[in-house]
Amino acid sequence: MITGLDHIAIAVPDLDKAIERFSVDFGLDLKGREDVPSAKTSAAFLPIKQSNIELVHPLNGEGPVQKYLDKKGGGIHHLCFRSDDIDADVERLKKKGYEFLSEAPTLGAHNSMVIFIHPKSADGVLIEINQPRD
Amino acid sequence: MITGLDHIAIAVPDLDKAIERFSVDFGLDLKGREDVPSAKTSAAFLPIKQSNIELVHPLNGEGPVQKYLDKKGGGIHHLCFRSDDIDADVERLKKKGYEFLSEAPTLGAHNSMVIFIHPKSADGVLIEINQPRD
Repeated sequence: MITGLDHIAIAVPDLDKAIERFSVDFGLDLKGREDVPSAKTSAAFLPIKQSNIELVHPLNGEGPVQKYLDKKGGGIHHLCFRSDDIDADVERLKKKGYEFLSEAPTLGAHNSMVIFIHPKSADGVLIEINQPRD
Repeated sequence: MITGLDHIAIAVPDLDKAIERFSVDFGLDLKGREDVPSAKTSAAFLPIKQSNIELVHPLNGEGPVQKYLDKKGGGIHHLCFRSDDIDADVERLKKKGYEFLSEAPTLGAHNSMVIFIHPKSADGVLIEINQPRD
């Protein structure tokens, strides 16, 4: 029986820089590193707490997800990190050189403020940050 | 402050079929659905328990991750589900029409048996199944 999600794998061009990104910039803890000769990879593991898989489909056949499907047919689209102060995190990450897809957070799903980091700022990974509104 | 990973978003061409895949085939529970007009999406949420982000880099500049980086520069590569009986799950999923990248599980990271489902069997998402060896 399948008992849960073991991991989300991200292919990275520089392992040390990626570890710094996901630990220092996005707050995860590094649990360990391991070379896996059978898979010809060197891997780093960063635990995450309870999370969600969000399946997204275009509403009315338009928008960015429709464009993505037209191009790729489907796939893992982005990761979203939760913030308790999105404005402060955006300011902090902008100072570190991250580029965002909008100037400021906007209202998204679940009554949350959301903003996206440009994938070119994160080695090809589209990263969302969200913060639920009170 | 960023407090954790909120979700992993997967763009899907058919929301009902994708919900069935990740609930019936991969054992997650459906928590809810929501139309998000601001993002022009219809979304479904399936909670996951504690998991990991695994950063993977090629060992010695070769292998499938190197090929992926050569083509795309980096990105979210695959999802891995944990099984407590990988042979039974492979048999079950083969009967449902899933195609795998190898005939049988092989030894992977963390002394686990691993096998990959072909992305064309899962709307463009590369899915690994693993089971730790005793």
